Amino acid sequence: MKVLVINAGSSSIKYQLFEMPAGTIVAKGMVERIGEPESALVHQYNNSKFASEVKAPDHDAGMQVILSTLTDAKIGVVKNISEIGAVGHRVVHGGEEFTGSVIINSHVLDSIERFADLAPLHNPPNLTGIRAAMHSLPSAVQTACFDTAFHTSIPKTAYIYGLPYDIYEKYRVRRYGFHGTSHRYVAQRCAALMGVDKSRANIITCHLGNGCSITAVKEGKSVDTSMGLTPLEGVVMGTRCGDIDPAILFYLADKGYTVKQLNTMCNKQSGLLGISGISNDMRNLREHAKEGSERARLALDIFGYRVTKYIGAYTAVLGRLDAVVFTGGIGENDAAMRAQICAGQSQIGIAIDAGANEAREPKERLISAAQSRVKVYVIATDEEAAIAADTYALAHPD
Amino acid sequence: MKVLVINAGSSSIKYQLFEMPAGTIVAKGMVERIGEPESALVHQYNNSKFASEVKAPDHDAGMQVILSTLTDAKIGVVKNISEIGAVGHRVVHGGEEFTGSVIINSHVLDSIERFADLAPLHNPPNLTGIRAAMHSLPSAVQTACFDTAFHTSIPKTAYIYGLPYDIYEKYRVRRYGFHGTSHRYVAQRCAALMGVDKSRANIITCHLGNGCSITAVKEGKSVDTSMGLTPLEGVVMGTRCGDIDPAILFYLADKGYTVKQLNTMCNKQSGLLGISGISNDMRNLREHAKEGSERARLALDIFGYRVTKYIGAYTAVLGRLDAVVFTGGIGENDAAMRAQICAGQSQIGIAIDAGANEAREPKERLISAAQSRVKVYVIATDEEAAIAADTYALAHPD
Repeated sequence: MKVLVINAGSSSIKYQLFEMPAGTIVAKGMVERIGEPESALVHQYNNSKFASEVKAPDHDAGMQVILSTLTDAKIGVVKNISEIGAVGHRVVHGGEEFTGSVIINSHVLDSIERFADLAPLHNPPNLTGIRAAMHSLPSAVQTACFDTAFHTSIPKTAYIYGLPYDIYEKYRVRRYGFHGTSHRYVAQRCAALMGVDKSRANIITCHLGNGCSITAVKEGKSVDTSMGLTPLEGVVMGTRCGDIDPAILFYLADKGYTVKQLNTMCNKQSGLLGISGISNDMRNLREHAKEGSERARLALDIFGYRVTKYIGAYTAVLGRLDAVVFTGGIGENDAAMRAQICAGQSQIGIAIDAGANEAREPKERLISAAQSRVKVYVIATDEEAAIAADTYALAHPD
Repeated sequence: MKVLVINAGSSSIKYQLFEMPAGTIVAKGMVERIGEPESALVHQYNNSKFASEVKAPDHDAGMQVILSTLTDAKIGVVKNISEIGAVGHRVVHGGEEFTGSVIINSHVLDSIERFADLAPLHNPPNLTGIRAAMHSLPSAVQTACFDTAFHTSIPKTAYIYGLPYDIYEKYRVRRYGFHGTSHRYVAQRCAALMGVDKSRANIITCHLGNGCSITAVKEGKSVDTSMGLTPLEGVVMGTRCGDIDPAILFYLADKGYTVKQLNTMCNKQSGLLGISGISNDMRNLREHAKEGSERARLALDIFGYRVTKYIGAYTAVLGRLDAVVFTGGIGENDAAMRAQICAGQSQIGIAIDAGANEAREPKERLISAAQSRVKVYVIATDEEAAIAADTYALAHPD
């Protein structure tokens, strides 16, 4: 059975087609600039790449572009659309309701719509993608895989903020966490690499990419994570500020900033970009730092420092720590950042092997030194594979 | 020489009179409800306590009440006001300028006034207290001891927020930290108790009182602290929320809350009080928790959990950790909270000795188990003694 994995954003739909249960990728690609006069398709299959301008005035049209591409006589990979037995959708916010992936029905659609209040930039396009797929593939099983689901095991002590309790009761303001599919996937892979059951391992997973979050995984379950009500909280990211004194916002409001300006500042103009004044791209900043830019250097230093602090905090949360995992674009590829984050951790017992850390392959590798009390791994994340596996399991419950 | 230590709030002046260099307390007390029709004096001396209604329509009058009490024929402790050779003032905010205590001159007064923008509730009454003391004791040396001074050693990587850098340049928005005199005092005492020079010890100091802050002290210097631009950031406190997702404020603003309401909520209606809905007092909450209140239990759990996280984070910041110190009203007196905070810390290597932890005396004591890799101390803080020592040293530079 083929499983199509869909990640629908406000103006794009990413897709990957899997052959299940083997888990092999048959094709993948993306329709971008949906809603603009000219949209763009990128399609990869059989080691080939196809790119073209297309017409996709809305998500329905974008989904049609994807399906006609997948069944195209020349560049397609399936003869008939009916070969796609199931579609797995990435959905950002599942609120407190969804503790795992589910088959989509009208109740699930209603819930995703309801949680849009908590994720106004993500749930509405996710929903549009689901509706387009249901329309185009009416006989396929449709599933929703939530970024928040893995974190629903976080205990109340960690998910309730120090605010008046009725703010939680009235508005559901609590820690939800994100990147859950990625944290779950790499934590499972880490336990497998250690040769232990996931229920016996305490792991800190560091997802460092465009967005960044750190999760404490105790015996297979998320018990705390750095992102909170929204993906703004936690470590410093490309353009997001991460943790700040909340009173900074009151102070700046007093200086004349509007709430809207502060929101834009914290989400779009902060983080690596804001500190450096140069770029939100790690490689770009490394070049500038090498050329002597103090602000680029400062941005890199702060980025790593904040991750180190979370690793420490979650070591204390877990009590005993077996492994740290680095994943995401930065986590997988930036050996210097990994070295900085782990430097000098004698008390906790983390020591990197410099040679192993600098190796580029394989995609899953141990990089800690032999004497390190805590194992450190680089594990390439694969949220699509996890969604495909969940979707296949739901479509084949036996 | 006698040194008078003054801590002036918006409607109160606390005082302690020390005999220096011995450091013995000759008298202490407080004038409360300054500015109201009836003010109140409490005065302690020679194991006696005197309380009375007094007239103190302003801080000048309050200071006169203190000085006439100190020189009173019956309840006084000095014959002539001229015996008070120096006055040490607690000042909350010294900005980036004051790295230690200083003799007050017109430049210092100007700076304290300038930094009032950063501490609008504290610096103005501190300044009023200084002016009243200069007026009443014109020949005494007057010194300012800043809550922020100990934290001016924090490196840029730890004090710059992940915000656009010009927010720092234009508005001096950065981590300042508070309770510095307390953190400095207990860290010094801790090194002395360990029998090592402070320049050789890495210590985490937990000041847990009405306000709470945690500091990483590396080789005698503060290198990070949990309070930030203001005393709102960090762990959960009596009525302050501590760390939250900053986007919660945007979310609640969208629900109709004004910035002023959010400010009041985060500072006055949150923390232990907000979570429990019952009280900001730890002992009161313990009673309610014993009687089965889940929300009181939750408030206690969250309070301890957040401290544990900071101990972990600062362990990673320090790399090697020698000791943890508990101080402040909660830190010194709440054995159950200390036990909760330190429970299960096998990775970091913190283990409490239950018996030692539950002992009430002496004021400085080791409470870690013999096998604990990290020593844990309870050390009663004494900011006034530290201010008196600084003041005496400044008044006697030889």
